[in-house]
Amino acid sequence: MCQNCLVKTIHHAQHHFGWDNSLAPAARVAPGTTLEFHCLDSGNGHFSPGSTAAAVGSLPFDKINPVNGPVYVEGAQPGDVLKITLDEFRPGGFGWTAVIPGFGLLAEEFTAPALALWQYDRHSMAPCAFGEYGKVPLKPFAGTIGVAPGAPGLHSVVPPRRVGGNLDIRDLTAGCILYLPVETAGALFSIGDTHAAQGDGEVCGTAIESAMDVVLTLDLIKNTPLPAPRFSTPGPVTRHLDGDGYEVFTGVGGDLMTAARDALRYTIDWLCREHGMRAEDAYMLCSVCGDLRISEIVDAPNWVVSFYFPKTVLQ
Amino acid sequence: MCQNCLVKTIHHAQHHFGWDNSLAPAARVAPGTTLEFHCLDSGNGHFSPGSTAAAVGSLPFDKINPVNGPVYVEGAQPGDVLKITLDEFRPGGFGWTAVIPGFGLLAEEFTAPALALWQYDRHSMAPCAFGEYGKVPLKPFAGTIGVAPGAPGLHSVVPPRRVGGNLDIRDLTAGCILYLPVETAGALFSIGDTHAAQGDGEVCGTAIESAMDVVLTLDLIKNTPLPAPRFSTPGPVTRHLDGDGYEVFTGVGGDLMTAARDALRYTIDWLCREHGMRAEDAYMLCSVCGDLRISEIVDAPNWVVSFYFPKTVLQ
Repeated sequence: MCQNCLVKTIHHAQHHFGWDNSLAPAARVAPGTTLEFHCLDSGNGHFSPGSTAAAVGSLPFDKINPVNGPVYVEGAQPGDVLKITLDEFRPGGFGWTAVIPGFGLLAEEFTAPALALWQYDRHSMAPCAFGEYGKVPLKPFAGTIGVAPGAPGLHSVVPPRRVGGNLDIRDLTAGCILYLPVETAGALFSIGDTHAAQGDGEVCGTAIESAMDVVLTLDLIKNTPLPAPRFSTPGPVTRHLDGDGYEVFTGVGGDLMTAARDALRYTIDWLCREHGMRAEDAYMLCSVCGDLRISEIVDAPNWVVSFYFPKTVLQ
Repeated sequence: MCQNCLVKTIHHAQHHFGWDNSLAPAARVAPGTTLEFHCLDSGNGHFSPGSTAAAVGSLPFDKINPVNGPVYVEGAQPGDVLKITLDEFRPGGFGWTAVIPGFGLLAEEFTAPALALWQYDRHSMAPCAFGEYGKVPLKPFAGTIGVAPGAPGLHSVVPPRRVGGNLDIRDLTAGCILYLPVETAGALFSIGDTHAAQGDGEVCGTAIESAMDVVLTLDLIKNTPLPAPRFSTPGPVTRHLDGDGYEVFTGVGGDLMTAARDALRYTIDWLCREHGMRAEDAYMLCSVCGDLRISEIVDAPNWVVSFYFPKTVLQ
C-alpha cells in the first residue's frame, strides 16, 4: 500500500446482505485504486465480551454476514478479471466462535449452541488464549470476498461461487493477490466476514469472527477467461502454526465428506480424552486452527482425508 | 534409531502382493525391535533410466506394489495398536512417475500413457530436475504401510483401509510416529511403495516412485481402541516446498471430488499456458509437488477445494 496515497474509505454503514447486481454502488473507483474497508464482524455486532451461549439462539439470521460495498470498478465488464491485492488487515481485538445449530461439518452431532470469546492484542497479534487449553496463533483475513454474480436477483451470502463470496480461504492474508472472474459491469466488489484466525475447512462453521479494517487495491485485467477464483501467496502459509509439528487423524473411505467428518471426529475425541476438553470446545478449537487435507484421492475405492492439529496450540 | 543395535533386515525378496492374514511371516520380532526393509519400487523394477512411455503399457498389474513383510510382532492381538517410529529413509537415486490409463484423479481426460524419469543425488537429496521445467524438492516416505486386515482372504493392495495400507500420506517422513489398529494376531506389518516426493492427493496416481531402504521401529500399545490410522509429526511438514509461496487454484461446488478435479484442471491449464508444459507433464508434476486442501466445507451448498502449487519448483 502507498501510505501517502489518498485512500478511499468504505465505512461500516456501507454494507449489504447477500449479492445482487442491482445494488447501488457504495463507491465508483478507477482501476488501481486503494480502498480501506471498515468491516463489521459476521455476527453484525451481536456478540460482546459479556455474551453467553444463549446469545447464539438470538442471532438474527437475516442480518448476518454483512459485506462492505459494493464497489463499482470503472471499465470492468463480464469476461474481465478483478485483481485484488490484499494490503493490510487491522483487527479489532475482540472475537467470537460459535457452534450454531444446523450449521457446521458435524451439525448432526453438535445440536446445542456454544460460544467461545477471544480477546487478543491487536498490535502484537500474539497467539490468543483459548481458556486454559492453549493459545491459537492469529493470521487475519476476510472470509467473504467477491463480486456480484451475473444472474439477476438476490443471492444468499452463505455459499461461495465462481465469483468468490464466502470462500473462507484461510490463506488469503496480507500480501496475497486474489483473482476473481467479473460477471457484471463494474464487477461490484464487496468484502466482509473478517477472521482473526481459521483452519482449512472452518469445520465448526465459524472462525475467530472479528471486526477489522482491511486495506486493498483493486485492478483490472481485461478480456481474460477465469473459471474460478485463484490466488498467489508471497510466501509460506502455515509457519505461524507448524513449528512444533502436528497430531494428525485420518478418515479412510470412499466418500470425501464422510472421511473428512471421521478425521475431525477422531481429533475431537483425542482432544477430549487426552486434553480434558468439552467436545464443543474441541470442535470450535479445531475450526480456528486445524487443517483438513486430502492426503490421497486416487487409490480407488478409498480416499484419505487428514485433519492436522498443530501441536503449538497446546504447548 | 540405535546405530549400534542389532537391526533385523527384511530383504528385497521378502515381499508379497496384496494383504492376507494367512501369509507366513517373513520375521517374528519382539515389540521394540528396529528393522531395516529393503523396499522395491511400486513398479517392481519394471522401469529403468532408458524406459519410454511404451513401458507403461507392459506394466504387469499382478506384480505391482510389492510390500516387504509381513512381520509378526509377538504379543500383538486385535484391539491393540501398532506404534511405528519411522527412523530413516535411504532412497536409491532413480525414480519414475507415470500416467497409467484408467488410474488417477483425471483418468477420463488423460487416457494415454506417459512417463517421467528422475535421477537425484541420494546423498544430498537436492531438489530434482523435472526436464527444463523446474526442480522438485524431495522428502522420502513409504506410500504403503499397514497391517493385515482381520477379514480372511486376499485383499487388494490398491485401496487403503482402517489398518493402513496404500495411505499415500506425504507427511509420513523420517521422525514421524504412525499408529495403526491391529486386527489379527501378530499384526502382520508390511511396507513398500516408497516415494522420493509426493504432493497431498497424489493426483496423477503415482509419485516419484523410487526403491529405498527404510529403517523403523515396531512397538505395541496394548488394548487401546483406534478407529483409523493416526500419526504425529516432530516438526513442520511443508518447509521443503513453501519458501516462495504458492499459486493456488480453487474448485467451488457442492461435490468435493468434482471441486478437487476442477482445482487440479485449472492448475494444469495454467502450467500449460504460462509455463509451456505438455498437459501430461503438468499433471505428473502436480502429483509430485502440489497439495489438495479443503479450504471450506461448511458454507452449504458449496465447498471450496484448493490446489496449492509451490512456486519454488519453477524458480
